[in-house]
Amino acid sequence: MIIVLRQDATDEQIRHVIERIEELGFQAHLSRGTYRTIVGVIGDEEQLRAEPLSAIPGVASVIPVMPPFKLVSREAHPQETIVDVAGVPVGGGFLAMIAGPCAVESLEQMRRIAAGVREAGANILRGGAYKPRTSPYSFQGLGLEGLKILREVGDEFGLPVVTEVTDPRLVEEVDRYADMFQIGARNMQNFVLLSEVGRVDKPVLLKRGMSATVNDWLMSAEYIAAKGNSRIVLCERGVKGFDPATRNLYDVAAVAAAKRLTHLPVIVDPSHATGRPDLIPPCALAGLAVGADGVHVEVHDQPELAKSDGAQALRPHEYRELMEQMEALATLFHKQIPRARDASAS
Amino acid sequence: MIIVLRQDATDEQIRHVIERIEELGFQAHLSRGTYRTIVGVIGDEEQLRAEPLSAIPGVASVIPVMPPFKLVSREAHPQETIVDVAGVPVGGGFLAMIAGPCAVESLEQMRRIAAGVREAGANILRGGAYKPRTSPYSFQGLGLEGLKILREVGDEFGLPVVTEVTDPRLVEEVDRYADMFQIGARNMQNFVLLSEVGRVDKPVLLKRGMSATVNDWLMSAEYIAAKGNSRIVLCERGVKGFDPATRNLYDVAAVAAAKRLTHLPVIVDPSHATGRPDLIPPCALAGLAVGADGVHVEVHDQPELAKSDGAQALRPHEYRELMEQMEALATLFHKQIPRARDASAS
Amino acid sequence: MIIVLRQDATDEQIRHVIERIEELGFQAHLSRGTYRTIVGVIGDEEQLRAEPLSAIPGVASVIPVMPPFKLVSREAHPQETIVDVAGVPVGGGFLAMIAGPCAVESLEQMRRIAAGVREAGANILRGGAYKPRTSPYSFQGLGLEGLKILREVGDEFGLPVVTEVTDPRLVEEVDRYADMFQIGARNMQNFVLLSEVGRVDKPVLLKRGMSATVNDWLMSAEYIAAKGNSRIVLCERGVKGFDPATRNLYDVAAVAAAKRLTHLPVIVDPSHATGRPDLIPPCALAGLAVGADGVHVEVHDQPELAKSDGAQALRPHEYRELMEQMEALATLFHKQIPRARDASAS
Amino acid sequence: MIIVLRQDATDEQIRHVIERIEELGFQAHLSRGTYRTIVGVIGDEEQLRAEPLSAIPGVASVIPVMPPFKLVSREAHPQETIVDVAGVPVGGGFLAMIAGPCAVESLEQMRRIAAGVREAGANILRGGAYKPRTSPYSFQGLGLEGLKILREVGDEFGLPVVTEVTDPRLVEEVDRYADMFQIGARNMQNFVLLSEVGRVDKPVLLKRGMSATVNDWLMSAEYIAAKGNSRIVLCERGVKGFDPATRNLYDVAAVAAAKRLTHLPVIVDPSHATGRPDLIPPCALAGLAVGADGVHVEVHDQPELAKSDGAQALRPHEYRELMEQMEALATLFHKQIPRARDASAS
Repeated sequence: MIIVLRQDATDEQIRHVIERIEELGFQAHLSRGTYRTIVGVIGDEEQLRAEPLSAIPGVASVIPVMPPFKLVSREAHPQETIVDVAGVPVGGGFLAMIAGPCAVESLEQMRRIAAGVREAGANILRGGAYKPRTSPYSFQGLGLEGLKILREVGDEFGLPVVTEVTDPRLVEEVDRYADMFQIGARNMQNFVLLSEVGRVDKPVLLKRGMSATVNDWLMSAEYIAAKGNSRIVLCERGVKGFDPATRNLYDVAAVAAAKRLTHLPVIVDPSHATGRPDLIPPCALAGLAVGADGVHVEVHDQPELAKSDGAQALRPHEYRELMEQMEALATLFHKQIPRARDASAS
Repeated sequence: MIIVLRQDATDEQIRHVIERIEELGFQAHLSRGTYRTIVGVIGDEEQLRAEPLSAIPGVASVIPVMPPFKLVSREAHPQETIVDVAGVPVGGGFLAMIAGPCAVESLEQMRRIAAGVREAGANILRGGAYKPRTSPYSFQGLGLEGLKILREVGDEFGLPVVTEVTDPRLVEEVDRYADMFQIGARNMQNFVLLSEVGRVDKPVLLKRGMSATVNDWLMSAEYIAAKGNSRIVLCERGVKGFDPATRNLYDVAAVAAAKRLTHLPVIVDPSHATGRPDLIPPCALAGLAVGADGVHVEVHDQPELAKSDGAQALRPHEYRELMEQMEALATLFHKQIPRARDASAS
Repeated sequence: MIIVLRQDATDEQIRHVIERIEELGFQAHLSRGTYRTIVGVIGDEEQLRAEPLSAIPGVASVIPVMPPFKLVSREAHPQETIVDVAGVPVGGGFLAMIAGPCAVESLEQMRRIAAGVREAGANILRGGAYKPRTSPYSFQGLGLEGLKILREVGDEFGLPVVTEVTDPRLVEEVDRYADMFQIGARNMQNFVLLSEVGRVDKPVLLKRGMSATVNDWLMSAEYIAAKGNSRIVLCERGVKGFDPATRNLYDVAAVAAAKRLTHLPVIVDPSHATGRPDLIPPCALAGLAVGADGVHVEVHDQPELAKSDGAQALRPHEYRELMEQMEALATLFHKQIPRARDASAS
Repeated sequence: MIIVLRQDATDEQIRHVIERIEELGFQAHLSRGTYRTIVGVIGDEEQLRAEPLSAIPGVASVIPVMPPFKLVSREAHPQETIVDVAGVPVGGGFLAMIAGPCAVESLEQMRRIAAGVREAGANILRGGAYKPRTSPYSFQGLGLEGLKILREVGDEFGLPVVTEVTDPRLVEEVDRYADMFQIGARNMQNFVLLSEVGRVDKPVLLKRGMSATVNDWLMSAEYIAAKGNSRIVLCERGVKGFDPATRNLYDVAAVAAAKRLTHLPVIVDPSHATGRPDLIPPCALAGLAVGADGVHVEVHDQPELAKSDGAQALRPHEYRELMEQMEALATLFHKQIPRARDASAS
């Protein structure tokens, strides 16, 4: 931690700053420059971070020098973590290929789509049962019924299933049916929910919030890890931007930046990032090229009849074509796309 | 709803679009231009909004023409709503002056600060018992103990109390102690929580999310209203910006824009918007000048010892000076700052 | 300047950093912490800023502690500067009230509008002769003819005139006709143009760029001042935002932040900031309340026939009503709106 | 163009809107919906765009349905344009590999770097002679001397050269020495400069502005094309973002979106986009994967001594490694990296 004093800080204020630091059990290291005086603080920055040092009279600014997360940081754990999702390894060279509709609509819809994406090479099936919708009047998902369909179809096609959880009271229920929790972008800083999934021993797909910095995102992962669950996969899905050309602003550099800071796998979601089916394939490839550990794509066989976000889904044959290119890219980068296990139905 | 077709849309695609609209029970109204064909859709846009029309082949874009909210819209309810917060009216010319520390730390701290802000002219007391903190290692609030202190001090000083609720399971508990729920910026799209406070007959202070448009914000209010609770006060607290000069980007024009769209009161929070005590007073005045129905300010008597966000709090005497200016401004704009009721202790 | 070393920096790298700093003529001050080593650099930060210190192996980051501008900084010049615009003082308690159409369209149009805004209390007349338009097919202004009209009408109504200059080759020409140069938002970092107006002894209205931080904005003022012209008035006109509710995001906190960093006057332009006539009056008042030294408003008597930006102009009677409120606010804040001088025609 | 009327628009206002449209020579097509009335306007949208229709009383909003650019649009010219840069084709399957230092510092520096990047496979050499710097006190480039060095080294190594032009008065001078003009991000909407390079028959590298939408960017290209020069290569270099993890926010989806709208080549600049040498290689690869027609990278052999932006340059051996990966990716996507012509010195 570095404390920069105001140009007009008095000697008494400087003494007070140093006393305050020493009271808190840290060492202060004074540097008087031509224009500014600086105090370096030596000790565990984590503890110090909680103190409102910038409220001390005479302080101009407080500059942390350590990242604020520990358990998820690569400094603490240099080797890449491989997260096991019901048999499918993600990270450390293994790519997650997550696909499926925005919302579970019916058993038949899920079976058709699961068949399509499995054949294309997807290794995890997605589908929303509880949908966070901007409007209270929109379709909110099938709920428990949706979870059951997802489980049944996942088992039938040998695909682990991931679904969003939005309510801390439903973590137990979702845990019974899903192989991986998804925390959506709008809930990235729903710390109550993060703590709840942190108490369960099951992988979590943590989407980046729309205005979250890479540090904020990793701090949310730290929340989960701090409760005991380190089986976290991060997912970049676009941040808020100013250009209506795309729904969000797809931040591939954040994937590379995050991977330098954390040992956790980081995947991309070009469906939500762009909101445009024509941009999903090139952006999926860009995600792999930047080093992502997988790609999450929404797939629907009848987008124009979809109950949620149909306009941003690929059709199964488009997904198949994309998977061919993704496989070629994976090979080029010496990465592997694990195959789904034998399906009960195939 | 207006549907713009692609330049290369075939006659068959156009026919299919019209059929689809008619199947859904709407009327289609075709306009063939020199370069583009447009279909106007006549009927209840709300229903149509849920349909993935832009996924229909040949469709270039779908442009809604109605705001997506109803209960909170001024079109539906032209007169300004006055929200009663345990006897203090907010809106329609009455200004809420909410003040208090970021977090409830102790009975003594709350009593000192409440005395200071009441004397200055505040009419609602704030204090966090459950704190959503970015780091799992930061002080998370006193919880139930904090709620009890807040209630006791509110009663002692005759000030209604507002506190944040972050967990749907705690809505009932918070309801027992507080006069107003606060939904924080990070939970503005926590639809589970919105629904839960929507079921209680108690005012809600709904902060704007960091990357929420005015429409998103009003849709979140609509969620609460749709469950039966229309006692909502909106609060602008800054959106995510690119300039580190201020913590967030204080969007006063959004206050004016929101007030044209909704009948609900809209207040401002210059503490979170700027994160800088030196900017809170001018930004509070700017909020009143733009037409806000009140100002929310964090006040702490010992910022350098505060357990949370001390660096952005005003000291009681600074708040008193600000209140004098706010009173002069209120008078100029023919608005009224309701006084707190007689306090049991005064 | 503070240099933070990487956690894995070797002793040799640390030695090399210190040698490099000493070679450059500075003193290095080493602080070894538990997790990080920090080097404080003592000397004139301005010189050091140009050096690519972060490219030295082992360096994690370089943190400046001084603002990068000097001539325009309040540290160097604590008292507020009053800029004289052909007899109208701006700053230090005097408010500039700049009004007029987006573009000069004809002598008659300018005379009608000048008469209206003068009567309402404006003290500087604006009008564009050279218009920077996003489309090459839009009206680009009347050029020299427009400058002459503006001058003639300014003289007739006793109002100093301000107009935009976009081409360094036209600075001399614009200088002959105008009392104040305007540098538009799109040219805020057109350093060639800044240097050119810096060589003339005439006031400059420097608009903030759409993605400029307060620091960037003040650096652009520094460019002008460094060439010898310190008669600069800064103008906030909204930054790029994500919400289509307003054209730009009106950043009033930046006005307050800038005024703490610089001695130059800072005014606001709610016309460009919001792009909505209904939001101009409340946002103008918010600007004055936050401490702005004036307000720039576009006024047109026939907005629906305007050749440029008609949709964001106030009508003269709307401007007159706004001026009444602004006068009341000025009085409350003990500021003064200088009157235009006697007009030749009145 | 679609005109949406206000809910409370009177019949007389509606009639006036229609009259106004017909006066302007267009056809109006009225659609009365349950809640809203809409007027479709038929005719050349380009002309209509200039009219302030939204200022007509009763109008709620005006929605264009055509892109505002013509010459550069893919609708007008479906086939990809190949821009010839002194013998190196760019676009249509040919990839530009532009490399070199931020600033030309000396003949020796340029010769060393040119040798390195040519050997690695670059086909165009960059180097700044006139540098737009945020601070008036920073190194501003060698000017004419720099242009001469660049030309000499380009000829020696058989590499076409590109350099930034910032002053309309220097277009002729730069034209004498360079094979391609660069328009920097800060000048993307310097319409005076765009018009000037539009009058020369020489390729232009047009960087995207920091807060420019894809539409704004293409409109700037349209400015150049409208003056007669269609030899334009667009370059994405990051937009303003809120996360300090990277200098700018690298927007690869904009590359894909732009390529759908225009026939011009679009390349990427991961150096400026990220400002971090460790992120340049993965982001360069992401750019190629998303479909970019080339990659612009800053390379310096002594970053810690560079006079400008050293901290974001790759070293020659790092560039060589990156080029190997880019070549593999080019092959995978069936693209070609043209080789530099035989160098006089090699």
